[in-house]
Amino acid sequence: MTSPILEKVSSNKSFEGELAKYKFKSAALGGLSTNFNLFLPPNASDSNKVPVLIYLAGLTCTEDNGAQKGSFLGPASSQGIAILFPDTSPRGAGIEGEADHWDFGVGAGFYLNATNPKFAAHYNMYTHVTLELPQVIEAAGIPIDWKRQSIFGHSMGGHGALTLYLTSPQKQYRSASAFSPVSNPTQCPWGEKAFKGFLQGGIEEAKDKYDATELISKNKEPVHILIDFGTADNFYKQGQLLPENFLKAARDAGYDEFQVRVRSQEGYDHSYYFISTFASDHIHFHANFLKA
Amino acid sequence: MTSPILEKVSSNKSFEGELAKYKFKSAALGGLSTNFNLFLPPNASDSNKVPVLIYLAGLTCTEDNGAQKGSFLGPASSQGIAILFPDTSPRGAGIEGEADHWDFGVGAGFYLNATNPKFAAHYNMYTHVTLELPQVIEAAGIPIDWKRQSIFGHSMGGHGALTLYLTSPQKQYRSASAFSPVSNPTQCPWGEKAFKGFLQGGIEEAKDKYDATELISKNKEPVHILIDFGTADNFYKQGQLLPENFLKAARDAGYDEFQVRVRSQEGYDHSYYFISTFASDHIHFHANFLKA
Repeated sequence: MTSPILEKVSSNKSFEGELAKYKFKSAALGGLSTNFNLFLPPNASDSNKVPVLIYLAGLTCTEDNGAQKGSFLGPASSQGIAILFPDTSPRGAGIEGEADHWDFGVGAGFYLNATNPKFAAHYNMYTHVTLELPQVIEAAGIPIDWKRQSIFGHSMGGHGALTLYLTSPQKQYRSASAFSPVSNPTQCPWGEKAFKGFLQGGIEEAKDKYDATELISKNKEPVHILIDFGTADNFYKQGQLLPENFLKAARDAGYDEFQVRVRSQEGYDHSYYFISTFASDHIHFHANFLKA
Repeated sequence: MTSPILEKVSSNKSFEGELAKYKFKSAALGGLSTNFNLFLPPNASDSNKVPVLIYLAGLTCTEDNGAQKGSFLGPASSQGIAILFPDTSPRGAGIEGEADHWDFGVGAGFYLNATNPKFAAHYNMYTHVTLELPQVIEAAGIPIDWKRQSIFGHSMGGHGALTLYLTSPQKQYRSASAFSPVSNPTQCPWGEKAFKGFLQGGIEEAKDKYDATELISKNKEPVHILIDFGTADNFYKQGQLLPENFLKAARDAGYDEFQVRVRSQEGYDHSYYFISTFASDHIHFHANFLKA
């Protein structure tokens, strides 16, 4: 696949499909070069565009963690679903202090569009994921059917999956799922720090746009959401994730367990050893909607 | 699990089992502290010791690569098989030059016992894997049935799996398999460099002990061996792996495709994206013998 926009950096055959890494200069990220991985199942072809599931990774991660450790490729291959793995932030913006914290800035873009002028030229992961990546991948002629998208993620990426699902224009995602998501970020230290840094309006500005618990409480549309978290997850214990807040808000808003399912998994932690255990389950959840 | 010998460094629940990292001071490795990972399936208990499959990793790897990227834990859990992931060399010996090369020394112990005096006190991965690890794990009361062991590995670790299988005392392994193994190391640059460095007798000394192709040609016993390699593997193309030499030697020695199976996998490379594709297949191959 050649393209004037995308440069293919590497390609690995896996589960009869192809996991390819691309790079391109991202308008959303202020012209910086960014990478993503894209898995295409073996049945993808010019005459058979396939549905796509977008995986948003967590703090400190890149486009590689989910591809390497998630155990997603096997079930995606069987189901005939592509998986897109974006990076977690712009890289190389050169903003003072952007790489000083593991939970803010580089590797920690929180899937939002920054309004703080210091970050607004580069930290626009929301637009990058919802608009730009589909455009550049479509323009390269890669056989994905963008009318059939779903989204999932881990931790900060679980926050991203839920908030993009609940706010993206034209309902572009059919379903959302998350492993250990940051579910109510205006109420936890990670979210507070991110919103105060990235948003001119701080935490107040985030409530309408970037907090899944706030969003589900006001949502009026049918939803398809699955969440798993582990009871031995230290970040859960520290109150960074707050999935119970999301669940309560969803029930209060009238969503039953067929629309919003939040599962507590006994003894599991925050790692990819947890994610990989339920990877196939999440792929099959999305397949119900992507292949309907 | 507490033990006067082993210290548990971390524990992650995965596929209903437990992946634990341990460290201990290794006599075989000259008293250095070494790590290993051990996955126990959920059916392991004091009243139900489980069989074990040992995974030997390749150049530059540690005990983590196979555990994180191999996609072994799911099928091992289903089959009720433990997986032991040793490190690939001693670490911290302080031998001059031991960390100067990615393909020799630290991260590249080649699963042999060094006879070159410079390395002989520390580089004894053969004894570490075949003798010491079973002893210390047994002494800690971890419920593994060491009468049911098999072994597999990748690249340098594939070399290790095949040579340990063909040379270990008392036929301690029931079956061996390998992904992209270094199959005839006395005939390839990686092996030549390793043997010249680690062994006083150099390449000649290696022929009787550490070359799978040489060993299978002289072997008289029934064997159960499975090998997969990818046709797009650059190390295969460069002549580092030479699985065709092993296959020819096996056929010349009278082993048929039921005893020695070497499969060429079209388009796959040397990466864990290849390994994970065939992970379940290899676990099931060993399960035939481990659960017989």
